[in-house]
Amino acid sequence: MPGEFDFIDWIRSQVPSSPLVQTGIGDDLAVLKWDPADLLLVGVDQVLDGVHFDSAKHAPDLIGRKVINRNLSDCAAMACLPATAVATVALPRKSVVTPFSEMGSLLIFCQQLFLGMKQAADAFDCSIVGGDTASWDGPLAMTVTILGRSAGITPLTRSGAKAGDGIYVTGPLGGSILGRHLTFTPRIHLARQLAATGNVTAMIDLSDGISRDLRHICRQSNVGAILDANAIPIHDDALTLAREDHLAPLHHALHDGEDHELLLTGQLAHDTLITRIGTIVEGDQILLRHHDRTVPLDARGWEHVL
Amino acid sequence: MPGEFDFIDWIRSQVPSSPLVQTGIGDDLAVLKWDPADLLLVGVDQVLDGVHFDSAKHAPDLIGRKVINRNLSDCAAMACLPATAVATVALPRKSVVTPFSEMGSLLIFCQQLFLGMKQAADAFDCSIVGGDTASWDGPLAMTVTILGRSAGITPLTRSGAKAGDGIYVTGPLGGSILGRHLTFTPRIHLARQLAATGNVTAMIDLSDGISRDLRHICRQSNVGAILDANAIPIHDDALTLAREDHLAPLHHALHDGEDHELLLTGQLAHDTLITRIGTIVEGDQILLRHHDRTVPLDARGWEHVL
Repeated sequence: MPGEFDFIDWIRSQVPSSPLVQTGIGDDLAVLKWDPADLLLVGVDQVLDGVHFDSAKHAPDLIGRKVINRNLSDCAAMACLPATAVATVALPRKSVVTPFSEMGSLLIFCQQLFLGMKQAADAFDCSIVGGDTASWDGPLAMTVTILGRSAGITPLTRSGAKAGDGIYVTGPLGGSILGRHLTFTPRIHLARQLAATGNVTAMIDLSDGISRDLRHICRQSNVGAILDANAIPIHDDALTLAREDHLAPLHHALHDGEDHELLLTGQLAHDTLITRIGTIVEGDQILLRHHDRTVPLDARGWEHVL
Repeated sequence: MPGEFDFIDWIRSQVPSSPLVQTGIGDDLAVLKWDPADLLLVGVDQVLDGVHFDSAKHAPDLIGRKVINRNLSDCAAMACLPATAVATVALPRKSVVTPFSEMGSLLIFCQQLFLGMKQAADAFDCSIVGGDTASWDGPLAMTVTILGRSAGITPLTRSGAKAGDGIYVTGPLGGSILGRHLTFTPRIHLARQLAATGNVTAMIDLSDGISRDLRHICRQSNVGAILDANAIPIHDDALTLAREDHLAPLHHALHDGEDHELLLTGQLAHDTLITRIGTIVEGDQILLRHHDRTVPLDARGWEHVL
């Protein structure tokens, strides 16, 4: 069944190169040579009721925070500084019933949503400069478009990984569904600190799970990878979830989405801020090495099926 | 009942000024001093199934065209040149049933959607540089974020109209629902030609109908307006629609949305490209002068009620 990747590959084949565009479709953000001295990065992400949040369960300020932070995490993935954002909100007309009635009015709900967005944006000096609101018969849907600037650091893409590079993550993984998917902090400062070393060759933020996001780096860099199962840092939430669903904690660390830690490749010194989890190799296979066997790592993370 | 305007007013009150932002929330696009020699304009618009189009009736390439052209029309309103766009598509999971089944697969539907977008963007040398696709249990929803550049012409806003200015439109109005809401051409070249005269004081594109869009100019310029009922150019579609629904053709010309002609104020010479329809006055009233009486013009255009 064709998936999101196929569609994106097809779109890339349709779009000609442009002198304005340094990096186009297929990375976390596009890189534009707007002001040649300070590159402009732009990208958009959506959060949808029932997919990325549940408006019956989650507070509107947390939903607002999440939609901004997903986009700020894309800035982290490219090692750029966020500058401004524009947003859309499609509001359900039926919302006078539930859950919004508990909040007095939809206006108050929208204000909470906006304040959650604003607080998250303010934390990284990002101004919300415009948007569009509409109401419809569908569920709550939001998008944020982020504009960032390179500000002295060359943007990192998914396409620079080389055989021999180490593979690293910036924190423990798995089980974000227990709450972290709403409350994570985008790793912007750490991303820029790592990028400034000049030793990072490729970077992505973990939105869909390692098994899928590492595949983006490998595809776009034309390389393979071997991960060390024992080296993957596992979050306590993955342990909690594993006790409930009887899947292995490692399964959650590899396949759960929305960790929003960074996955990067390069030649980096040992550092308490990052954990080495594997090595980039030639070829196109992604393998997982257990102590007694090495197996192909299937992409079980989130992919929207078309 | 609080409406979209109240929410936008409230949001504006929450957002502090920033040295980067020349014009912020409340205009067709935000104006950013990114490269001081060439201002960056940015804005976002959404099109929603059942509100802005009907996926059971409208071909996907026309839907794609509309979402791009709505945004290009915002560029026209500011007299800027479009440069790049990013888009989101939220796809209904249920779409394997109807109407997408007729098209073979959702992938083909998405390709048609994209090709409609691309063709509209190409017509104005605008590159699509990124996006986000997801599937969900809601209806089809799309957004486009547009980045434009001032390219030698000072952006026009809604806030410069002055008492004594003429009020002008660039084409006949009303009845766009009969098809023009999908097939209009953004007035970018005309907008820049008009703005280059230096005699335009405020401009907006007619997305919500004159009775509402003129109100934006008046509110943000702190002025009132008198429109001449006999001078409003009426589109043939408004006449057709009036025969069907027995409303006056003028009613459609004043209150229908999605004409995407330009509404502008200033001191402009007589010109076949524009029609003078009234005069900006002091105060805050918007009046409509018939041959025998002058009445307040109610805002009956589209407003999303919160």
